[in-house]
Amino acid sequence: MTAWWTQAIQQPNAEQGEQASAHQNQLTKPPGSLGQLEDIAIQLAANQNTLKPKVDNVAIRVFAGDHGVVEEGVSAFPQAVTVEMIKNFCAGGAAISVLAKEQGADFQVVNVGTATPVEDHPKLINQPVAAGTQNFCQQAAMTEAEFEAALGLGKSIAEQAHQEGAQLFIGGEMGIGNTTAASAVAAALIQDELTLEQKVLALVGRGTGVDDKGLTIKQQAVMRALALHQDSISDPVLALQAVGGLEIVALTGAYLRCGQLGVTVLVDGFICSVAALAALSINEKLRPWLIFAHQSEESGHQKVLQALDAKPLLNLGMRLGEASGAAVALPLLRLACSLHSSMATFESAGVSNSDD
Amino acid sequence: MTAWWTQAIQQPNAEQGEQASAHQNQLTKPPGSLGQLEDIAIQLAANQNTLKPKVDNVAIRVFAGDHGVVEEGVSAFPQAVTVEMIKNFCAGGAAISVLAKEQGADFQVVNVGTATPVEDHPKLINQPVAAGTQNFCQQAAMTEAEFEAALGLGKSIAEQAHQEGAQLFIGGEMGIGNTTAASAVAAALIQDELTLEQKVLALVGRGTGVDDKGLTIKQQAVMRALALHQDSISDPVLALQAVGGLEIVALTGAYLRCGQLGVTVLVDGFICSVAALAALSINEKLRPWLIFAHQSEESGHQKVLQALDAKPLLNLGMRLGEASGAAVALPLLRLACSLHSSMATFESAGVSNSDD
Repeated sequence: MTAWWTQAIQQPNAEQGEQASAHQNQLTKPPGSLGQLEDIAIQLAANQNTLKPKVDNVAIRVFAGDHGVVEEGVSAFPQAVTVEMIKNFCAGGAAISVLAKEQGADFQVVNVGTATPVEDHPKLINQPVAAGTQNFCQQAAMTEAEFEAALGLGKSIAEQAHQEGAQLFIGGEMGIGNTTAASAVAAALIQDELTLEQKVLALVGRGTGVDDKGLTIKQQAVMRALALHQDSISDPVLALQAVGGLEIVALTGAYLRCGQLGVTVLVDGFICSVAALAALSINEKLRPWLIFAHQSEESGHQKVLQALDAKPLLNLGMRLGEASGAAVALPLLRLACSLHSSMATFESAGVSNSDD
Repeated sequence: MTAWWTQAIQQPNAEQGEQASAHQNQLTKPPGSLGQLEDIAIQLAANQNTLKPKVDNVAIRVFAGDHGVVEEGVSAFPQAVTVEMIKNFCAGGAAISVLAKEQGADFQVVNVGTATPVEDHPKLINQPVAAGTQNFCQQAAMTEAEFEAALGLGKSIAEQAHQEGAQLFIGGEMGIGNTTAASAVAAALIQDELTLEQKVLALVGRGTGVDDKGLTIKQQAVMRALALHQDSISDPVLALQAVGGLEIVALTGAYLRCGQLGVTVLVDGFICSVAALAALSINEKLRPWLIFAHQSEESGHQKVLQALDAKPLLNLGMRLGEASGAAVALPLLRLACSLHSSMATFESAGVSNSDD
């Protein structure tokens, strides 16, 4: 049997995209003068197979998981914060809670595997695959069965969003230690001319805010992990199992399923971009379903975005995760759609076109 | 009698800003992790003298005027487009019309001086100062009386917005030929190590989209104008009279009056930034009242932003003017305020703070 995640991704409707592009050139503005807002409207028109795309119905899902690698001292915050923040997401006090509510987006949290149990809550999909990952400096982060369960949880979350009519899927993440895991996955997946050490230095950043000493600890932990697993990270699935995180795997599964179902994804920051990189490494046809929301302040993000050939919408110095950058970019997608659908054409408004 | 525009600008409440900054560090996120959204909330708290700033009530005013310099062949569009676009603004078909309506902003158009008359409309403040400017390659763009009338019109527009309770003022502009005028004003006001020719090459861009030949014509027109007026552009008021535009002067007046009245301004793209530069050259204390919305694709904008020491919120490759970039940045200000006011603190949410 073929694994579900290798099944076909849908193709956007190229003809609809061309019509949307032609329509943009008829609107009362110099051609191209709305910049990336034009590109977004055209991409959404092709993806939604409609002349008037919309992103009214938005599903925001924050995936949370814990990381055994925190034993190495890679985070500025204690591991308990993962569960504490899940409660804060549910209670409405976190940044993403506020951003989702303000914009009328449907918001849920997914516990993919915290180190300690979390009480149920109406906003929480509480289906932990394991009590966090193992310390990948010593062994594989997860078993094959855990990988498939986490990926499958992401799949089911995407399916639920699709069934509820989501026009846009926004994934987010929370997990103390997860910038370390994301850096390790990125270093395994990005093939370039750099040495492993150079790559790790470029990809490991300060996360929630470690100091210089903490940064060195993170870099060394990632280098040791990659040395330990060097023979078993030759493809994205193996790399995710060896040095990934449960929430990163769930995001990867959700993104792939969105592409199979034809739901556009707005990708958040560093960790989500690494999940997108893993998903694209599994099936590159996912690319047109992805819009990149922002460039994070996390230092490794720029290199990951380059590998993705992505030009994100925002660069506000944010580095919070939890889908916050994507939620802040959401109004831009909505305004891009409004402009595309509601502006007058040169003909309808009686405005003269350019001399040329 | 002292000219009104040299009267005192209000000072933001620094203590309120410090309290807002301390509050940001108590919210459930790593300190600084919301990037520029934190800066915006703190700036608005100081400007509005409140712990919970808001930008619910927003006044968008697009100032329109014509330019004698179009005789030189500096634009890709015919001059008639200025009036045609005023009608399109009023009818709701222009980008800014759509953006204002979608976001519930109060929107009006101000005719500061078109070459041909415009019919009245409920959305139009129809008070032309002159039938456009003179061709500044041959004489001063406007008389002293026209300058004072245009600046005064901007003042009265800011006062009206303030009386109506605007928490944010967004100015925009429309005027075929006005990137040429703005480039000339910027070249006169920016003092740096470049020669006049180097400065003009850096500040003159393609506007609505002139080709290479058109670009050369624009550059040469600005160089001739600056040579003609070199003895009468020694201060911002004289520079605006010599090579400015009526709508640029009105924007300058509106910005200065906003600072006098304590209304924060969200500055749009290239031409608005040049008006802001002129206003700051008249009174540098205006600076804390300005937020810069976006970096335009217009090539001279980067140099103007550097001169203003401004780090704009967006860089989406937009180059439309008419306040569109500022209107697209408006949701970021609103979300910054919501996050500041509605997020939980570490204490209230029971979330552990960082180890350090």
